[in-house]
Amino acid sequence: MNVDGKHYRTIWVKPDSHDSVIQIIDQRSLPHKFIIEDLVNVNQFAVAIRDMHVRGAGLIGAAAGYGMYIASIEGRIVCDKPGEFDEFVGKAGEKLKATRPTAVNLAWAVERQLQAIKKEQTIDKKVNVAFQTANKIADEDAEYCKRIGEHGLPLIKLIADGKPGDPVNILTHCNAGWLAFVDYGSATAPIYAAHDAGIPVHVWVDETRPRNQGARLTAWELGKHGVPHTVIPDNTGGHLMQHGLVDMCIVGSDRTTYTGDVCNKIGTYLKALAANDNNVSFYVALPSSTFDWKINYGMGIPIEERGGGEVSHVRGRYLGDIVGVRITPDGSHTANYAFDVTPRRLVTGLITERGICSASEEGVRGLFPEKFD
Amino acid sequence: MNVDGKHYRTIWVKPDSHDSVIQIIDQRSLPHKFIIEDLVNVNQFAVAIRDMHVRGAGLIGAAAGYGMYIASIEGRIVCDKPGEFDEFVGKAGEKLKATRPTAVNLAWAVERQLQAIKKEQTIDKKVNVAFQTANKIADEDAEYCKRIGEHGLPLIKLIADGKPGDPVNILTHCNAGWLAFVDYGSATAPIYAAHDAGIPVHVWVDETRPRNQGARLTAWELGKHGVPHTVIPDNTGGHLMQHGLVDMCIVGSDRTTYTGDVCNKIGTYLKALAANDNNVSFYVALPSSTFDWKINYGMGIPIEERGGGEVSHVRGRYLGDIVGVRITPDGSHTANYAFDVTPRRLVTGLITERGICSASEEGVRGLFPEKFD
Repeated sequence: MNVDGKHYRTIWVKPDSHDSVIQIIDQRSLPHKFIIEDLVNVNQFAVAIRDMHVRGAGLIGAAAGYGMYIASIEGRIVCDKPGEFDEFVGKAGEKLKATRPTAVNLAWAVERQLQAIKKEQTIDKKVNVAFQTANKIADEDAEYCKRIGEHGLPLIKLIADGKPGDPVNILTHCNAGWLAFVDYGSATAPIYAAHDAGIPVHVWVDETRPRNQGARLTAWELGKHGVPHTVIPDNTGGHLMQHGLVDMCIVGSDRTTYTGDVCNKIGTYLKALAANDNNVSFYVALPSSTFDWKINYGMGIPIEERGGGEVSHVRGRYLGDIVGVRITPDGSHTANYAFDVTPRRLVTGLITERGICSASEEGVRGLFPEKFD
Repeated sequence: MNVDGKHYRTIWVKPDSHDSVIQIIDQRSLPHKFIIEDLVNVNQFAVAIRDMHVRGAGLIGAAAGYGMYIASIEGRIVCDKPGEFDEFVGKAGEKLKATRPTAVNLAWAVERQLQAIKKEQTIDKKVNVAFQTANKIADEDAEYCKRIGEHGLPLIKLIADGKPGDPVNILTHCNAGWLAFVDYGSATAPIYAAHDAGIPVHVWVDETRPRNQGARLTAWELGKHGVPHTVIPDNTGGHLMQHGLVDMCIVGSDRTTYTGDVCNKIGTYLKALAANDNNVSFYVALPSSTFDWKINYGMGIPIEERGGGEVSHVRGRYLGDIVGVRITPDGSHTANYAFDVTPRRLVTGLITERGICSASEEGVRGLFPEKFD
């Protein structure tokens, strides 16, 4: 999407670098500083993924794809034989996979690269195919998100038609925006599509404690693209829905069972309950790579617990620097569950790259029959 | 309650001050610094209430009571005649009432003092009755909260009896603790009563964005009294309830209709929805001064909107100082609704100084029949 009028993806090959440098937006500094970082070796990719310079399901996958390509360039320098080369990139893949063990797209992208590389016979061909595969992973991610936008657009247009002149108020939680993918985002894709089509939209952005991905990232990317929005504490959405100030909710997903239960950022479940209690539509937008085709019961998904420092401290800008301030008393414990599960009964529909379906095994099967063979 | 083993109220007459100095805990610095402030004139009381050195329904009422007493001391110095004196304290009352116009207890305490003062004939007697009335307001507040604790205790004991050896997990939102009253608190009173009775309790403390009263105040006061607790982001409670990690919720209230609808800190409604969805009891603890005897429909209560700076910035401790860090992008709007309304259908019961009743007109009438005459 656009940053001050210029189009960006979240990851790209640096121009005039002989395809040997990958660039990312270092998201740790957003929204206070816009920093572009060069990545030229696998260790830098591992650090960028582990320390969340890049984050979000789609972007982690794309970063892993490019990381494996950069590994292949390193492999061409240090390895003499194709077998040695395969072993080298295999080790690089292990290193990348270990950075965020729960990220489904990470392992998936690494494996896809290893399969592609293994099939080629010469080191030069292996490097070439790694480059093509990395680009393909990124392009597919952007393309799937774009289609999610196209499929979600009519839902927004329908509401807009019913209240001419007034903006459609959409609530979202966390960042399922283009910063979490390569472009467009999942939850934001229909919003950008509507905005770009001239439909007036206004987004309620949950700040999304403890890491504030909404306040920091979603607000930033919506603002840079020119989409009207308001940041609210996570406590606020229920009140807004009670008072008719939310027309629909769209959130993303970190993992969705093939039966329609949605694992997403902690707090999503509370908004789904409020939507349900106030007859507000609650949509989940996701590329099909986010489906878990093996688990049929969302409450069975293991929930990552993160460090308590994200709860006891809040990071933000102070006198031009980004610092963390302590909000809890010394000695008070904190707990930091990263995700929760929204039962399918609270989900109005799933917006995927193939269209919209109900949050049910039947619905998902209708769009992705080959996965049920 | 106790601070490092020593008993404190939130407001008291300074010993050996000839009853001419009132002391408070300056809550703005909690939990990072424990500062006791002397108040010796009405202007200082007005600043302390307006700028939230003291806050919380009960404590604001007690502060207004003592503020009127200090006004009477000033009046004795500057006024010659009883009529002049009454006018002087009347103006002081107007000044105090203007500081937090929505606080029910503030106007109530000022009026109670003015009535008492008006009845006496001499200035000395007026000053004496103002002192007695201020003490009575504070003592009643503490006494009512203590009774709330006694009435709520059996609810906790019942759960404890069903899981011997394990702590009873209680979730609370915002600060309805002793810091919001003169002592004991409302939501915390049953918790302190249980803890002091040797029943193992553990409190999930919602941090309560945007002002973090949970993370700052509730965590601090529970910790100082020795009650085990864990601070969680406001997003977390639903997940905890889904996984059986919450035995009951107890929250306070800023205003409750005589029909049982509960206006409380923004986000309370979301927790009530989650409790209802997971068959967790959801209790509201309140002294009867919090009832609104005129409004029968909670959604009709006007909701205060506060400044956006509380959302865009977070205050906390950094290098020993208390500073505010900016978390949202420059240019992003914020919205800051202070309260929401939890419909009576989601409330298991109301815990008052006279006992527990259902959140319904019938229930409230049973405990407070004289209010319905």
